[in-house]
Amino acid sequence: MSNECIFCRIVAGTVPAAKVYEDPDVVAFMDINPVAKGHTLVVPKAHSDPITETPDAVLAKVIAVVRKVARAHFQALKAEGVSVAQANGRAAGQEVPHLHFHVIPRVEGSGRQWTPGKYDSPAEMNQYATRIRDVLC
Amino acid sequence: MSNECIFCRIVAGTVPAAKVYEDPDVVAFMDINPVAKGHTLVVPKAHSDPITETPDAVLAKVIAVVRKVARAHFQALKAEGVSVAQANGRAAGQEVPHLHFHVIPRVEGSGRQWTPGKYDSPAEMNQYATRIRDVLC
Repeated sequence: MSNECIFCRIVAGTVPAAKVYEDPDVVAFMDINPVAKGHTLVVPKAHSDPITETPDAVLAKVIAVVRKVARAHFQALKAEGVSVAQANGRAAGQEVPHLHFHVIPRVEGSGRQWTPGKYDSPAEMNQYATRIRDVLC
Repeated sequence: MSNECIFCRIVAGTVPAAKVYEDPDVVAFMDINPVAKGHTLVVPKAHSDPITETPDAVLAKVIAVVRKVARAHFQALKAEGVSVAQANGRAAGQEVPHLHFHVIPRVEGSGRQWTPGKYDSPAEMNQYATRIRDVLC
């Protein structure tokens, strides 16, 4: 836990986020600058970065939640594809130095595009979060 | 195992590939159209696709190898960052329908760019494979 780390503060609940999943080790919440609406981040609760410094047991728990979120994107958002991405280092495009997997719903033609966008309103983001949360198990 | 699947045929050894890692469950080999030289693919030996249909136990083994390959990119290739990416469905840019994680070495400024390139020669690809293989443990 680092007070400097925005994701640690989301985990701790001192910074708000639209969470869609939480268990003792992993949390998932909406990216506020979505590449596509529904874009979700999956992070371990314990601060860790980069992937090379993250224990295999933690990665196993995180990737299992990535899988759940991907299933939710297909089911709840009617995604036609789902991208999973994880960056290590600014050279790879990483912005927050706390391990996180992006899970991004895709439609035909969107492919690998990576242009962060915005929700029309906080309410719209919360509607997406609710749709995802409702099918996560 | 599917004879139709190019990655199953690489796993079986009936299609050649520059392998950098192999254990009873997972294999890693060079992408022949690298986004950056050193671009490596990590796949489960058992045919599986997409991530939502892949057992958690398999994903745990695959992501542990992704971590090893990322470490090798930092160590052997002096990568300044490493991208990890996994696509589900053509809408997400997936080309081969057998679960695979891309592991891509990055340098400052390359960020999330995704333009497949070529090696100058098969020998150059094999040199990259050797450098990665030599530090994988």
